[in-house]
Amino acid sequence: MKKVKIYITLKQGVLDPQGKAVQDSLNTLGYSEVLNARVGKYMELTLDDSVDVEKQVEDMCAKLLANPVIEDYQYTVEEGIAQ
Amino acid sequence: MKKVKIYITLKQGVLDPQGKAVQDSLNTLGYSEVLNARVGKYMELTLDDSVDVEKQVEDMCAKLLANPVIEDYQYTVEEGIAQ
Repeated sequence: MKKVKIYITLKQGVLDPQGKAVQDSLNTLGYSEVLNARVGKYMELTLDDSVDVEKQVEDMCAKLLANPVIEDYQYTVEEGIAQ
Repeated sequence: MKKVKIYITLKQGVLDPQGKAVQDSLNTLGYSEVLNARVGKYMELTLDDSVDVEKQVEDMCAKLLANPVIEDYQYTVEEGIAQ
């Protein structure tokens, strides 16, 4: 089995109100050193060993997991996870 | 400036309906090799160089960013980001 970690972030230049809210909240709490915050999604998928994990994950991201118009995605594949 | 990447995940054993929905959707789309999916949050913070970034980030996670009852968090600090 393989474990895939997927990081989905908004593209640079896309407004991130959730990140702005996080930044404002942190500043209000006294963490004035926080200059910027961006919020994204993180997913962990467990995949059966299949023909081409990388191609499959690319497909999944483009079709369902990320919105390629406004989001970027990155992923890492870890081999041989015993679950 | 420092860039901090924070990964927040549900603790093992905590039900993840969002992850289940992602898994079911992927299976429905024909990706039957997806055995499990867990969804978490990903944040990127830009911090001014302050006294002790690690301690500050620990604090922020415990107080605002994560719910320590049901969530775990991890983070990495990247030095010297020119933004």
